[in-house]
Amino acid sequence: MKAWLSRLSADLKNPPASPAELARFELDHALPGTAYTLDPVPALGEGYCIRRRSDSSVIISGGPTGLLYGAYALILRMLSGEGIPDVLESAPRYPLRMINCWDNADGSVERGYSGRSLFFEGGRLSYDPFRMRELGRLLASVGLNVLCINNVNVHDPAQQLLENMLPEAAALADLFRPFGVRLMFSVDFSQPMRHGVSSADPLDPAVRAWWKAAAERVYQAIPDLAGFLVKADSEGRPGPFTYGRNHADGANMLAEAVRPFGGVIVWRCFVYNCRQDWRDTKTDRPKAAWEHYAFLDGKFAENVILQVKHGPFDFQVREPVSPLLLGMKQTNLAMELQLAQEYTGHQIDLYTMIPMWRELFDEIPENNIMSLAAVSNLGRDENYTGHPLAAVNLYTYGLLAWDPAMEAESAVSRWVRLTYAFDPDQERTLTALLLSSRRTYEKYTAPLGIGWMITPHDHYGPNPSGYEYDLWGTYHKANRDAIGIDRTAAGTGFLLQYPESLRKKYEDPETCPDLLLLFYHRLPYSFRMKDGRTLVQRIYDDHFEGKKETEAMAEILEALPFPDPDREIILSRMELQKRNAREWCDIINTFFRRLSGVDDLHGRVIYD
Amino acid sequence: MKAWLSRLSADLKNPPASPAELARFELDHALPGTAYTLDPVPALGEGYCIRRRSDSSVIISGGPTGLLYGAYALILRMLSGEGIPDVLESAPRYPLRMINCWDNADGSVERGYSGRSLFFEGGRLSYDPFRMRELGRLLASVGLNVLCINNVNVHDPAQQLLENMLPEAAALADLFRPFGVRLMFSVDFSQPMRHGVSSADPLDPAVRAWWKAAAERVYQAIPDLAGFLVKADSEGRPGPFTYGRNHADGANMLAEAVRPFGGVIVWRCFVYNCRQDWRDTKTDRPKAAWEHYAFLDGKFAENVILQVKHGPFDFQVREPVSPLLLGMKQTNLAMELQLAQEYTGHQIDLYTMIPMWRELFDEIPENNIMSLAAVSNLGRDENYTGHPLAAVNLYTYGLLAWDPAMEAESAVSRWVRLTYAFDPDQERTLTALLLSSRRTYEKYTAPLGIGWMITPHDHYGPNPSGYEYDLWGTYHKANRDAIGIDRTAAGTGFLLQYPESLRKKYEDPETCPDLLLLFYHRLPYSFRMKDGRTLVQRIYDDHFEGKKETEAMAEILEALPFPDPDREIILSRMELQKRNAREWCDIINTFFRRLSGVDDLHGRVIYD
Repeated sequence: MKAWLSRLSADLKNPPASPAELARFELDHALPGTAYTLDPVPALGEGYCIRRRSDSSVIISGGPTGLLYGAYALILRMLSGEGIPDVLESAPRYPLRMINCWDNADGSVERGYSGRSLFFEGGRLSYDPFRMRELGRLLASVGLNVLCINNVNVHDPAQQLLENMLPEAAALADLFRPFGVRLMFSVDFSQPMRHGVSSADPLDPAVRAWWKAAAERVYQAIPDLAGFLVKADSEGRPGPFTYGRNHADGANMLAEAVRPFGGVIVWRCFVYNCRQDWRDTKTDRPKAAWEHYAFLDGKFAENVILQVKHGPFDFQVREPVSPLLLGMKQTNLAMELQLAQEYTGHQIDLYTMIPMWRELFDEIPENNIMSLAAVSNLGRDENYTGHPLAAVNLYTYGLLAWDPAMEAESAVSRWVRLTYAFDPDQERTLTALLLSSRRTYEKYTAPLGIGWMITPHDHYGPNPSGYEYDLWGTYHKANRDAIGIDRTAAGTGFLLQYPESLRKKYEDPETCPDLLLLFYHRLPYSFRMKDGRTLVQRIYDDHFEGKKETEAMAEILEALPFPDPDREIILSRMELQKRNAREWCDIINTFFRRLSGVDDLHGRVIYD
Repeated sequence: MKAWLSRLSADLKNPPASPAELARFELDHALPGTAYTLDPVPALGEGYCIRRRSDSSVIISGGPTGLLYGAYALILRMLSGEGIPDVLESAPRYPLRMINCWDNADGSVERGYSGRSLFFEGGRLSYDPFRMRELGRLLASVGLNVLCINNVNVHDPAQQLLENMLPEAAALADLFRPFGVRLMFSVDFSQPMRHGVSSADPLDPAVRAWWKAAAERVYQAIPDLAGFLVKADSEGRPGPFTYGRNHADGANMLAEAVRPFGGVIVWRCFVYNCRQDWRDTKTDRPKAAWEHYAFLDGKFAENVILQVKHGPFDFQVREPVSPLLLGMKQTNLAMELQLAQEYTGHQIDLYTMIPMWRELFDEIPENNIMSLAAVSNLGRDENYTGHPLAAVNLYTYGLLAWDPAMEAESAVSRWVRLTYAFDPDQERTLTALLLSSRRTYEKYTAPLGIGWMITPHDHYGPNPSGYEYDLWGTYHKANRDAIGIDRTAAGTGFLLQYPESLRKKYEDPETCPDLLLLFYHRLPYSFRMKDGRTLVQRIYDDHFEGKKETEAMAEILEALPFPDPDREIILSRMELQKRNAREWCDIINTFFRRLSGVDDLHGRVIYD
């Protein structure tokens, strides 16, 4: 077994018949000395209750999948040395804890850094059943229960998942079912037009009829399919706008088709003008999601979930929470995270995400969202996540999706304990390193919330003006005096989308958190930060620190007794990260010194 | 027939047996009323003499291919209305007038903007014999006599041209022979290693023996093959450096192999550090060719030709002449031009090159170079050059390669007359427009010789800092005060590679031509140009002018009676050029205003 399950038996040669059977297999192999009873309580659903009897045997009560989640909870707590209290009751906070794979039918993975697709190759489903079971165990062990296997950008022939690939897709669904994992498919909004329907207009009866028939066919093959995931009118994808319809029209039409079968429509809100003219200062991309969706609050069917990226841009290293997640009280919302390290180091640089997620959960009122989704960081690499330490993001995502109150440190240290047989000092060292890795990455990359100073398209490595005159709406407009976009009421007005308390906090540079200053404000290089440093000196300092911290991390990793092959992968990628941190540090500092003409106060080298 | 031969017969259904037979065919069809005699004078070689007899019949004397060149000269002068004097004697200035195709075996063309390869598809030779004959006529009509059909970056399986593709390559050589066109092959310096030889060391007897045997085999199949073209130790290509040998060792080894068969080795001098660290201010890419080759002057075999790009960088819109072309008096030199509009508008933007070439020829002493090569702008597009007006570059290249004293205006106006049946006013209008097009393109792109402010990799459209922190050695280091690299003795010393007169002219910003100022000097934005304008105002002015001139060109082209399909292609590409000129103008001006803080003196719009 791989990743944090490395101490479980690898012997799961055949698919178990049910979650309960799987629970027994895992318990028998992982805790051979422990007497246990599985006590089915259907009403508990995914929840479970573990009780220790006086004879130290245990009884696990739970619904059909709750038994499995309880078994894993018991196993992982015992293996990690944490142990269990006499009574441990738990149930997931969110009903849908989703993984979105951006896997293409040709076997490539969009923004994938862990090898090729686990599910597809050569235009068709193609997978190793053993690895599917391994993946099922990984997901089940942290309570993840929905797996969307194909890219939201549905490239031909992935549409065939609803067509002639359906029998094979049903076989894959069968394979995951005992793991409590339901499949989901990304669908192409224009799919009826592949079948002689003359439009994809959601109000056209022929279109509605096509989707109804399609849903019926699909659910006959996969009765527990979670539903469809849709990226519409976004970055060139087809959608309702073509027909003068809004996104409620589009989503509700699909929702009607899957409702008889208990399916949901997960509708992504990543809609913005990706052909913006850089000269246009009226359009401000972070405003886009709100403008497209907020007025539709309350208009969506009950089985529609709007899936909103956590920040208003696109998975930058530091963004405020998307205002859409704070509004839309009458709508089902899912927050979308990204495990794939698209902008955060490509699973070469270390970037443990849970500190960032904690900030998000602390900002979003408890009941504003009802599900979670995360873009997958999985691939065909032997270790599934490319970088062995990137697995901590999949693991902690599962933990947070189950219980968003989970603390970052305990989640990460649990993962460390399960994954590596380290002594307590080493455990603490690695836990601290992982927890600090996001801030380090942030320090040496784009400063103070400005974002986007990354190599266009590829999204690894620095390019301070790479997007400056491009069509993506992501500008910093740095000149010799100042940098940033004013997003207050005096500027683009983006801040007006927030509740008043947040708006007030952010609109004044004196109360806005330093790390978000350049997200909201245009400021001169001479601006005084709260600690008295100038903006440009703060930028220099962060970058020198980020580089230095990376070098320190390299020494720490070198000293830790990672087993092979992890050690070789971790150390060789750290060499690349050190190079990357140096490039970022030097280029960003040079960029700001060329513009500002200001030397570093401490005389460190900034190149001409 | 296509391009400037549109008024010739298209009926050349079969390959002619000889240049003389082709000459007769062309004369009979193009000038049906003209009595002529072909008078073979082998000693004239490629030269010819056309005499008009008193009965107005003509006699064309010439060597084997001279007869053909004489026939085309007569035909084109008659068709263009120029007529001929009583005696017209002519012989080419350069024995090798070469076209280098960058065609890959897979059918793609590196930096090709005219469709896919005319010669290759799917990893093998694949061509339309009719189009080969058409191409033969185009080349012969302007005296071009060497066609290197494969990319200097020899990607697998193009090596097979010397291996199992050889019989088919020989058939292609047969096809071009009556047109006076000899084939050439780009070779992979490490090719012996594909055949069990353990190295490619030019001093290793096994390597020498392999190349000798290869040459023997190749020349048996194609006895008049012009030779081999080699890109070695350049941008990742294999070469002698791997074995601690210099480029004379490498070139001479190959030269020895082809010498018995009269072949030449054309050895490209495009060698530089393409993995430069942007922080390294000692390395200066324009110095590279001189540093790699100048000390080898006199060390190359007689049948080696060093092929040197015309400028020290790489086909930028404005570069000084390469110092290597002014030194190396004891070495055979060919100057390399680029018809493919890699950095000069992708055959979308108009860019007539002969004004640039005239500047080069005016700078290079008569006997310094002994041949010419040009990277092809040909492809499978119906019109061969993508943009119909780009054909003027192929045509005028042929004319200059034959007679480098040819004036730009007469060359271009001849092409216009042959290509379009315009009235004299329209002819003058189009000629003037084409002649001005290079300067217009220069005005709206990178200013005053700085170069490289172009989208990386793709090389179309503006990106002022796209290469600034990259590995290619092409930096401008613009900051809030100044821009440019000091290449005088006080700076990188590149200027020391020039003869004293040129060095003196360029080293003083007061005598250096404005248009090369930023090639040689680092200057503040407040620098006063000779006409009193500041540097930054001059940059603004040029860019506004370039945009305006492009708009004016569009109106002129719209009014000219181009036939279809040329008209449609010309006007639609001009729309793209207008958009490109606007982007360049606005982005470059914004870039400089952000840095300098200086407003346009005339209050024109420069965006924030």
